[in-house]
Amino acid sequence: MLDYQALKAVAAVIRTGSFDKAARLIHVTPSAVSQRVKQLEERMGAVLVVRGSPCTATETGDWLCRHVEQVELMEGQLFDAWPALSPAADGPERVTLSIAVNADSLGTWFLEALQRFSKTADCLFDLAVDDQEHTAERLRRGQVAAAVTSLEQPIQGCRRIYLGRLRYHATASPDFMARHFAGGVDAHSLGLAPALTFDRKDRLQQMWLAAATGGEPAIPTHWLPSTQGFVEAALRGLGWGMNPAALVAGHLADGRLVELIPGKVIDVPLYWQISRLASAPLAGLTEAVRAAAAEGLETEDRGQGGRQG
Amino acid sequence: MLDYQALKAVAAVIRTGSFDKAARLIHVTPSAVSQRVKQLEERMGAVLVVRGSPCTATETGDWLCRHVEQVELMEGQLFDAWPALSPAADGPERVTLSIAVNADSLGTWFLEALQRFSKTADCLFDLAVDDQEHTAERLRRGQVAAAVTSLEQPIQGCRRIYLGRLRYHATASPDFMARHFAGGVDAHSLGLAPALTFDRKDRLQQMWLAAATGGEPAIPTHWLPSTQGFVEAALRGLGWGMNPAALVAGHLADGRLVELIPGKVIDVPLYWQISRLASAPLAGLTEAVRAAAAEGLETEDRGQGGRQG
Repeated sequence: MLDYQALKAVAAVIRTGSFDKAARLIHVTPSAVSQRVKQLEERMGAVLVVRGSPCTATETGDWLCRHVEQVELMEGQLFDAWPALSPAADGPERVTLSIAVNADSLGTWFLEALQRFSKTADCLFDLAVDDQEHTAERLRRGQVAAAVTSLEQPIQGCRRIYLGRLRYHATASPDFMARHFAGGVDAHSLGLAPALTFDRKDRLQQMWLAAATGGEPAIPTHWLPSTQGFVEAALRGLGWGMNPAALVAGHLADGRLVELIPGKVIDVPLYWQISRLASAPLAGLTEAVRAAAAEGLETEDRGQGGRQG
Repeated sequence: MLDYQALKAVAAVIRTGSFDKAARLIHVTPSAVSQRVKQLEERMGAVLVVRGSPCTATETGDWLCRHVEQVELMEGQLFDAWPALSPAADGPERVTLSIAVNADSLGTWFLEALQRFSKTADCLFDLAVDDQEHTAERLRRGQVAAAVTSLEQPIQGCRRIYLGRLRYHATASPDFMARHFAGGVDAHSLGLAPALTFDRKDRLQQMWLAAATGGEPAIPTHWLPSTQGFVEAALRGLGWGMNPAALVAGHLADGRLVELIPGKVIDVPLYWQISRLASAPLAGLTEAVRAAAAEGLETEDRGQGGRQG
């Protein structure tokens, strides 16, 4: 069987980013942490922790961390059923759940899910933020136990649940529209007006361009990796961008932002994929995610075309 | 002299993340882009582009990109003085400026600076977001031309300008306070109440703990890499965290958030460091950054203890 004392030290170093903080977290000396990590690495013949500031996990280290989380989750269920088994801990030992989520979900509906779940379970969340097309990769690599993703295809060893569609409007300030699109929104004007792109993984603008122009014109763009910054930059007239409906509904209503082409939206279907090992102990989290998504995303069964009308 | 046609191809691949998009951007075929990049790599004996989805720069590639930006900036000045020299371009060629900025500056005062600057200069921004203690590293590695950083020490080859202090309050919801700090805020209660930490590089909570308790207690924490998400999670009672004064002033005033220890703030001094090569052509940007910082940060010469009172 694995050496769980050593595994716990590895997980603590990776969670806190340093050997010193890990030592304080698990109530041993830093040299004990260092020794446990090193011995486990020697025994496994693999580096688990990339020493640095902060310390990070190797791919193998990530897998071990997820394993520790799942063991902790199962222990939690065991102690619920057999409280007498629970060790007299010095302070409550909380499970830390690693979840990958796309920035726009985090910026709109996802915290509602965590708030709901945290009312029933006393655990900590370690959120990894990435593009919705790349969160699944983190799940596949074992870096997280669950992910909000646009990947429809089930990941091996995971359950997949459809959540709904995150709606995006192509928006800009009225002033920006007057400066760049006075003659209309077409391939030519789009090729000159600065866009906003989240990062190199963000394909939303290209998807919208394809839908709006039938082509994929090269467009000049700012790069701005921040959900809120994206809305703010559009308000300030720095560029046009694809903004989540929930974040711009008010601005569209009061005219501070306008749609480049009214009604031309992009809907991104989102799925909750969760490791089967974690899926039973985390049934409550899945329920909370599903409920928050039902309120915050466009869902077919609403009949009214969804929250944003 | 360097082959600037090839350099432009490398910069386009790195800016757009793909050979196809680069081809559309610089109006040549994808195979021409691929050939130019490959030939330059062979001539320099170094990989410049990490092929992937998206394509990214190697360290050498980053330095070449900054060089291309600086040449473009200097060309801009030249064409301003001698318009006849300007090539008849098919569409305006905009300079893309790479800047590293900490998430909390981006979430508060920094976009005001870009808005001001963009009124006088038609350029694009490529923002890299990192912890204020790590943005300088990107400047040192040649990944960006300028950075908003907490690093006081001037970086080699750079100008450094003091901007002011970004003020942080330790905040939580009244409900969270009642649940976790009914008996007072001390090392014991802080050791049990879930905190919010941005990422492994974020030391603000530890700095506040040291100031508040005189020690560095190990604290349970959520990890939540989002400036706006941090405020939202505090409002939802998920944890306590260090929030920028500008983002929580309203919530503190209306009682939706309260300070853990009233008046116990952390001030982070921020500097603008800019490559000397870029500093003359970017004098206008520096001026805009300075002006926006003077409004958005605490500055000693305000006399009133700053904007947040």
